[in-house]
Order: sequence, then C-alpha cells, then structure tokens
Amino acid sequence: MQQILDASQPSDWRTLDPKNTIYLELARGRVVIELAPQFAPAHVANIRALAHNGYWNGLSINRSQDNYVVQWGDANGEDPAKRKPFGKGVKAKLPAEFSRKSAGLAMTVLPDPDGWAAQAGFAAGFPAARDSEQGNSWLAHCYGTVGAGRDLAADSSNGTELYVVIGQSPRHLDLNITTVGRVIKGMELLSTLPRGTGNLGFYETAAERTPIQAIRLAADVPKAERANLEVLRTDTPLFAALVESRRNRQDDFYKRPAGHINICNVPLPVRDQVAESKAAKKK
Amino acid sequence: MQQILDASQPSDWRTLDPKNTIYLELARGRVVIELAPQFAPAHVANIRALAHNGYWNGLSINRSQDNYVVQWGDANGEDPAKRKPFGKGVKAKLPAEFSRKSAGLAMTVLPDPDGWAAQAGFAAGFPAARDSEQGNSWLAHCYGTVGAGRDLAADSSNGTELYVVIGQSPRHLDLNITTVGRVIKGMELLSTLPRGTGNLGFYETAAERTPIQAIRLAADVPKAERANLEVLRTDTPLFAALVESRRNRQDDFYKRPAGHINICNVPLPVRDQVAESKAAKKK
Repeated sequence: MQQILDASQPSDWRTLDPKNTIYLELARGRVVIELAPQFAPAHVANIRALAHNGYWNGLSINRSQDNYVVQWGDANGEDPAKRKPFGKGVKAKLPAEFSRKSAGLAMTVLPDPDGWAAQAGFAAGFPAARDSEQGNSWLAHCYGTVGAGRDLAADSSNGTELYVVIGQSPRHLDLNITTVGRVIKGMELLSTLPRGTGNLGFYETAAERTPIQAIRLAADVPKAERANLEVLRTDTPLFAALVESRRNRQDDFYKRPAGHINICNVPLPVRDQVAESKAAKKK
Repeated sequence: MQQILDASQPSDWRTLDPKNTIYLELARGRVVIELAPQFAPAHVANIRALAHNGYWNGLSINRSQDNYVVQWGDANGEDPAKRKPFGKGVKAKLPAEFSRKSAGLAMTVLPDPDGWAAQAGFAAGFPAARDSEQGNSWLAHCYGTVGAGRDLAADSSNGTELYVVIGQSPRHLDLNITTVGRVIKGMELLSTLPRGTGNLGFYETAAERTPIQAIRLAADVPKAERANLEVLRTDTPLFAALVESRRNRQDDFYKRPAGHINICNVPLPVRDQVAESKAAKKK
C-alpha cells in the first residue's frame, strides 16, 4: 500500500472543506471529523450551527461501550429543566436522513459482494452502500463512522447527540439511523476511553465522563489553528489499485491472498497537507 | 436477545475447560481467554506449557495498534542473548496451523453469505469458516480472536507471541496465521490500552509497555481463584433463535431489520457460573 501512496499525485488527494469539518477538542487532543452533507444535509446544517454556537463546549462524552460506540452530548438532555439550549439557527426537530436518492451520487463500487447491501463502495470519500431497486444510498457504519443518536422515533435525532463506531462494523444500524460523517484523525483518542459500566456503556457517575473542551467548525477556527489534512480520493485509478492491493496482498507475509475485501476493511489514507508541501519544496 | 437468554436452560450453556483456559493477569484486571485445541492443537499445547512454566510472567504487552491488534510477548524475543528461555516442554518450532480438516468438526452454519469464505458459522463455540472444496476449516479473525504472531515464514510462530483483535475483523489474516482462541472476558482491559506510536503500533519505549503480572493456565490455578464462567453453546435451537433475533431485530428501535448477519457481529454470551447457581437457589 505504501508503494501505491508513494506514487500518488496531488490530484489523487482532496483537502477537507472547512465548512464540512469539525474539531472535537479534548484535554488529550483533537479529533477531526469530516461531515457528510451529501448524505445528511439537515443534520449537517444543524451540527454546523451547534458547533458555531459553542453548544457542546463544556458538555461531555457520556458513553463508551466496548466493541460498539463512544457517544457525546448533553448528559442532562432528557431533562427539559436542565438541558442546555441549542442556540441560534438550530432546529430541535429534523427529518430522519437514513438514506438519500442514489441519483446524483457517484459511487466507486467494490468488486465483492457486501452481504448487508446490494452494492457497497465509496461515495464522496465515505464508505457507502446502495440499493438499485429502492434507488437509495447511505453512509455505512464502519469503524470511525459518526452517527446521530436518536430515541425510538425515526425522526427523533437532531445532531446534538453524536456517536462514533469503535468496534466491529455494526452494519445492522444502516438505514436505521442518520449517519453524518466519519473520524479522519484522532480515533485513538476515542477508542481508548475507559468503557462505561452502566447500561449500554454509559458512565455511571459524572466524574467518569470526559469533558469536551470545545467542538468547533473548522471554518470558524483561525487558519493557523486548523488541521490541514488531505484525504485520498476514492474515485481514482490509484484508489482502485489500493483496493486491489488489499484484496490480494502480494507481500512476503501473506501466503494466501483473500481475493475479497469489505468496505469497512479498506483504509482511507489521510496526510498532513503542510508536511507534504514542505516535502515538495525539498525536492 | 435478553428475552432469549432469560429462557435458556442449563443445557444451553457450557463451562470452560480449565485445561483450555488461560488468565492474562494485569494490574488493571484479568483477561480470560479460551484456547481452541480443535483448531491449533500444537500451538495450544505450547501455550499450556508456556503458561505452566510462568514464561510470560514479568513480560509485557508491547503493541497496541488502533483498529487492529494488541500484542504481547518477549520484547527481547528477537535477541538470542537477551530473550527469556521458554522452559520445559515447549517446542521452539511448530508447524503452521492455519486451518484443519473439516471432517470431525461440526459447524453451525450461518444462513447468510460470508464473502471471505464459502461458508461461515460457529464450531466448538468459536466463529469459524470453511471451504468445502478444500475440505478445511479455520477459526476466523473477529473482535477478540487470539492469534499467534509470526515472522515471514509460515511456520515461524510458536505461541510465545500472541495478539488479540481489537477492531474491525481483519479477515484477510484468515488462513495466513494460526488462530488459537478468543477472549471470553476482559476485552476492555486490552481494547482501551494506549496505542503505540511506533511502526505497527509497537510502543517506542519500555515505559509505555504494560507489564504482565502472570499468564496462568486455569488448571494450574486454585479453584477458589478461578473465573467460573459459562459460555452459550452455539449448536442449540436457542442459539439459532439468538442469531435470527440479530438478523432481524424486532424491537421498537429498528425500523428496517437487516435480514443479514456476519459471524463477527454475533454476540457469544458469557455468564458467571456462581451467580447463576446462586440465582437458581433463590428460585
């Protein structure tokens, strides 16, 4: 894989759009999340407004369930008297955005069957799946996928409560919940959090929760403080070669190439834009 | 799922065989691992002898790679002058045990296609796969699966170096490495370890490694100190009902049942034998 990346051209990479990037700032570091307005425009609009309003600042990570999800939001969110106001421009109620119409969304389809969906691949840089009969597409639940927690009603999420997958891909959640993006950098800051001992991995005491210093929209952050990352494009011949190199590994370690790959096993490389441009200058 | 488990009978459960159970004792707690002699008899025999000899006591967890594996063994294992002797009854060299003949191994086959293998299901209580043409079966790489690290040569593992999967199932490792068992309890003690910042997630300094207090074979441990666990059988009508309840979830949260399951998404319930027998007495 490294050989393939070493041969990449600038055009094989894309920069993150600051309007679609949020930073979850913890005492232990920064988690960078790319939002997916292509899949959940109403939720992403709300998340942008919530971040702009500083809604999550001072709230906390309230749940860490092993092999499942880490989740944050307002620990008092269920209590109308105590819950934090959402602020300007935030809708309290949104439609469910479990999937979108496939029309207008290009997908790089994997050559192997998916099992959970008729087809799976990558769309707008995200692991995704689609159903040609229904004509819909959705952002799939893989390691690092970010979703909007909800109650029993399909339309009960509004983006205030977000979770990140930290284990085996829970694809049964696909088409049952609104997925809003994925973690680009800093997964280990979430995946290593102590697990909660309460029901569903919720922490049983306030002291166990991890405080959120801030969640900021990158567009609201001074340029000097932004994470200038580039993500490998998923609609290029180079990406196809990368997928094939993972389907059939050719190095000396592997005795039997798998001849198969799953969307959640395909790495989506990220690099530091600044470091790369410095490297280019050296040349 | 809880309803199904509540309806289980004692015969739906099996106790762990102390000869096939090892305890990884860390300052933060105990990790219980069930060994799989059905799949890797030579490696399991070596692991039993290594545990009996106290080989790992005082060694360390040397690697934690996000979304991949945690690994332990002798940090000086590559240095003939410094490495710890294996002790009595341990073979320095073993054959590769990447798979076994399917004959004599019953498998509860899942109804859904696997993708990575012709068939997948559960055998001897472990997630497993098989190939009818080749006539072989193997223990699959799921969250919690334990494998024997090796160098480039297929027969270069001997069980001294063990890893546990802590992320998305790396099924491409199937048939490329010897799998020896799975974690039954205490996964969160491994999955939350700080990630190593070196190549492949190895820790860069000795201070970052987690000391192993001991790895003991349960049969060598006084009965009063054993973890008396029971594991749900995978060859019963009750287990089939559990699988179906996960393929098509019927609770109020799910709006669209998946109609599909993957071996690595099927929970393998564990319960405390003592607590249950106490509960039975109460009744």
